[in-house]
Amino acid sequence: MRTLRIAMAQMNPTVGDLTGNLHRITTWIRDAKKVKADLVVFPELAITGSPPEDLLFKAQFVAENVRVLNEIAQACRGVVAVVGYVRQGNQRDPHSFRPSMRTAGRPALYNAAAVIADGKVVGSYSKWHLSNYGVCDESRYFLPGGRLPMLLVNGTTIGVTICEDMWSREGPTSVYTAVGAEVIVTIDASPFHIGNSGSREQMLATSARDNGVIVAYTNMVGGQDELVFDGNSVILDQSGTVVARGHVFREELLVADVNVEAVSRGRMTYGQKTAWTRKAVLAVDRLVMKGAAIQKKKRTRIAPEIAEPLEEIEAVYQALVLAVKDYVRKNGFTRVVIGVSGGVDSAVTAAIAVDALGAEHVLGVFMPSPYTSRESEEDVVELARCLCIDVQTIPIALTCEAYRQALAPAFADRPVDTTEENLQARIRGNLLMAISNKFGHLVLTTGNKSEMSVGYSTLYGDMAGGFAVIKDVPKTMVYGLARLCNARGPSPVIPARILDRPPTAELRPNQKDEDSLPPYTVLDPILRAYVEEDRSFADIVEAGFDRATVLRVVRMVDASEFKRRQAPLGVKITHRALGKDRRMPITNGYRITRDETQLVFSNH
Amino acid sequence: MRTLRIAMAQMNPTVGDLTGNLHRITTWIRDAKKVKADLVVFPELAITGSPPEDLLFKAQFVAENVRVLNEIAQACRGVVAVVGYVRQGNQRDPHSFRPSMRTAGRPALYNAAAVIADGKVVGSYSKWHLSNYGVCDESRYFLPGGRLPMLLVNGTTIGVTICEDMWSREGPTSVYTAVGAEVIVTIDASPFHIGNSGSREQMLATSARDNGVIVAYTNMVGGQDELVFDGNSVILDQSGTVVARGHVFREELLVADVNVEAVSRGRMTYGQKTAWTRKAVLAVDRLVMKGAAIQKKKRTRIAPEIAEPLEEIEAVYQALVLAVKDYVRKNGFTRVVIGVSGGVDSAVTAAIAVDALGAEHVLGVFMPSPYTSRESEEDVVELARCLCIDVQTIPIALTCEAYRQALAPAFADRPVDTTEENLQARIRGNLLMAISNKFGHLVLTTGNKSEMSVGYSTLYGDMAGGFAVIKDVPKTMVYGLARLCNARGPSPVIPARILDRPPTAELRPNQKDEDSLPPYTVLDPILRAYVEEDRSFADIVEAGFDRATVLRVVRMVDASEFKRRQAPLGVKITHRALGKDRRMPITNGYRITRDETQLVFSNH
Repeated sequence: MRTLRIAMAQMNPTVGDLTGNLHRITTWIRDAKKVKADLVVFPELAITGSPPEDLLFKAQFVAENVRVLNEIAQACRGVVAVVGYVRQGNQRDPHSFRPSMRTAGRPALYNAAAVIADGKVVGSYSKWHLSNYGVCDESRYFLPGGRLPMLLVNGTTIGVTICEDMWSREGPTSVYTAVGAEVIVTIDASPFHIGNSGSREQMLATSARDNGVIVAYTNMVGGQDELVFDGNSVILDQSGTVVARGHVFREELLVADVNVEAVSRGRMTYGQKTAWTRKAVLAVDRLVMKGAAIQKKKRTRIAPEIAEPLEEIEAVYQALVLAVKDYVRKNGFTRVVIGVSGGVDSAVTAAIAVDALGAEHVLGVFMPSPYTSRESEEDVVELARCLCIDVQTIPIALTCEAYRQALAPAFADRPVDTTEENLQARIRGNLLMAISNKFGHLVLTTGNKSEMSVGYSTLYGDMAGGFAVIKDVPKTMVYGLARLCNARGPSPVIPARILDRPPTAELRPNQKDEDSLPPYTVLDPILRAYVEEDRSFADIVEAGFDRATVLRVVRMVDASEFKRRQAPLGVKITHRALGKDRRMPITNGYRITRDETQLVFSNH
Repeated sequence: MRTLRIAMAQMNPTVGDLTGNLHRITTWIRDAKKVKADLVVFPELAITGSPPEDLLFKAQFVAENVRVLNEIAQACRGVVAVVGYVRQGNQRDPHSFRPSMRTAGRPALYNAAAVIADGKVVGSYSKWHLSNYGVCDESRYFLPGGRLPMLLVNGTTIGVTICEDMWSREGPTSVYTAVGAEVIVTIDASPFHIGNSGSREQMLATSARDNGVIVAYTNMVGGQDELVFDGNSVILDQSGTVVARGHVFREELLVADVNVEAVSRGRMTYGQKTAWTRKAVLAVDRLVMKGAAIQKKKRTRIAPEIAEPLEEIEAVYQALVLAVKDYVRKNGFTRVVIGVSGGVDSAVTAAIAVDALGAEHVLGVFMPSPYTSRESEEDVVELARCLCIDVQTIPIALTCEAYRQALAPAFADRPVDTTEENLQARIRGNLLMAISNKFGHLVLTTGNKSEMSVGYSTLYGDMAGGFAVIKDVPKTMVYGLARLCNARGPSPVIPARILDRPPTAELRPNQKDEDSLPPYTVLDPILRAYVEEDRSFADIVEAGFDRATVLRVVRMVDASEFKRRQAPLGVKITHRALGKDRRMPITNGYRITRDETQLVFSNH
């Protein structure tokens, strides 16, 4: 039986750390050779990390990434490797679009996969379909590719694609298979969001089945600013059945033997393809890997890993843990500080931080005011005990009073309002930042997506910090994460009363979130429709929500854009997060709530 | 003599304010008819404002923009109009790229120019070359167009293009002229940066001359978040000579008669064009404007305006004034509050605010600490007198002391360091925000580009506010602006001593900026090379700067990315500003200062 042994390195690179990434890649290559793989595959942009963003405008960075590729090539003998990198092309490449005079001085860059054999880069594939939506800005940096390198490795014909190419129905996969590819190796740096890995695998299965080809998909893993790559690398046979699947959120080498003989029998012929395909096959470069992996290695069949997919809430939790761990580690921090209030948001944030970093690297700070309840204080003490973290207490009453006196002449006899509430939040923000500055800890903020969406948060107050762990987690899901935490361990990590008490900011006497906001079970679905799904006011009302409530919510969302613009980074876990994913103008005269009957043209 | 009377509406729309923009456009149309224009032209995206960003993902917004276009059409009789809007196409338009399955659900949108005659939209041009660099993300929203509408208006043949299309050598202009266009109408929303209007006009002149065609270029004016559109609309004859030029930063209707007869004589023939052009002409749609502007209007020749271009520093100043005015007005504020320290940055910011809003709408707040010098206090008093603004004084010493006591147990016996300096800045930030919250004033921040680049600023401290006026102005240019202010008026508006004293943050005794930073005359050129020109460490050193100084500066720039991410919006005035223009990862292992000899691959 003709088989191909594929080793897929589900790797966690650091953006920009070319030397470190080189080291990681050559280590995996060694491991792949140890298991006698024919082919070892690395994710999209493995050398630079993903996304490298405007680092790509530094000519030296791009040149160094090519130098690192050549170093990798030299280390790669006895196995064929596919490695994601940035290819620097000629601006006059026939397949590049005509550049504007404005960008004419810049070199043409491609998001590419190098094919390495026998110590040399023998071919390169450049992504055809650039990802330019959501959090992705690839058209800012790259030109689309045009050539298709087809490899013959140990008698097996392989086509290489990158990420978005697989999502296009008329993408390179159909061209490769039209001219005889048996295996499609696709490399990706696809960030986690709820539901993404499932739909991705389904798409890959469809592509495998439709084209009658084996698909080996290697994804990146790890946190990078807002994004956390989930891994979930997978191999599917020509019927779309999973034959190997990597773990989620874990760096590992997934090794499997694929039965290539089974493929050839059921393949479509070239004649069945469209006219478009017939034209596109002219772009295929046939690369025969001669000396590389030709020696028939003596090896016994490997039983591949087929990791189980995670439940949604478990996946979210693990995504957040990895994101925190990597943000802290990759930015050179060792310890974090969190303002703990006795509420569920800060409790869940602290629990995630403890799982990511260990309890000894998490410092809680409790900053009571005269409005802080005894319950909150007790719950903080209990949380600290459950999580085994240090909690320091810094009361804010005297500092509040100092501000009150300082501002008294300016405020004259103006009544007390949210200004005084914001001041409390900002004093707390300053105290956390002071501890951060003095000790070098990273401040984790604790605001959830529901609050951040409607602006129920204080800029420079509770929003002050370096990393906003649950920024993309709706409040109702924060409770889900808390219950998950408690269900996992032998004993609860989040005191039960924190889950039971009604949410409150405790910035004035007897304040409850529901004084200012609809209940979260109402708010969250409205926000999902408005923020994540771009649904109109009329649509949302029609879906059964109270008109006045929807009006209030969308107005709050629209009015708080300026706050979100100055918010710290947070982890994307939904289809649309509040960072790079959502780019709304601050100066914005559009009022979504103006429905058809209300749109009056004043000059008519 | 055959002439065409063109009225170019250098318009200041508000993003999203469809009703307001409709009103503005119909008013200009009336004015254009009053001056008996054949053609009235509005800027790119005039209906939506520019850039509309993710508003374009709201289907209702796009639909309303089309409805507004139809309202405009109905108001438009007796003159032909070209109006920028968003066209909603069919995803299966033959010229659209093959969309990914991921974005397949979204309608195809085009950045388009509608041609209106006789109360109807009779044609539409969609931008061919999308702007997707710098601050522009058009590939996120739009598909490139493919058709070319060619109009016959009063016997004159006209081609329509948009913005970036003019920058492409093989753009639609050469196709239009190959098939007989005499006038190219190009609409734009091109933001100001130093040198941009000059190079734009040069490019337009080259295009006019090379193609032997008249170019009528209509640009937007006004502030939108980070951007300020400069106007500078211009008409060039077939020799590239300017025949009319609008004012900079001013909303106006620029009217001129162009001599079309002179064009036809000197034109290139179709045969001279490239094979590419011959193919592209198949995309031309010929639109004859029948009833629209056919009546030969009795009119006397108009002497067109040819406004003088501004000096660089004057242009920067006016850009900042308009940006502040529009940000404040379009966001519904009436008054601003500025922390004035006695330094040049806050003085210049206050002067700009006074010019933008009037002295009665500018409140200064002076917040002295024990480190504040008597000179600073005197200079603030003098500044307030010169600018005729209110200045309130709020000392911060007692609030500092309250923080010191609150933090004493946590800090134990740690020595005093920058933590205490940051606290002072953050107290000031809180005080300004408290005044903002209490009275509804917008806080203008006063940090310059030099500080923001190296992170010589306190997050949530002096960086706290809604709009950062001089964020893109290097410190050396801040002095230039100050001198300009003083040179303009009958009496100085910025006290001379503010310009003479060495810059200081006054956060500890006898502190000077030069204790922490190189002199600004050294720092600014290094920053320009590194931040604006993406030059490498080795390059900058080779240009003659001290190696250790360059090393220190690039390290400071790299290390302060997280601060800039949470900074307020500021006005872009250079080739590369610190907002949307620069998208660096925060988590970033790349060290630019690792030159070739230092790049050691640890595993070899």
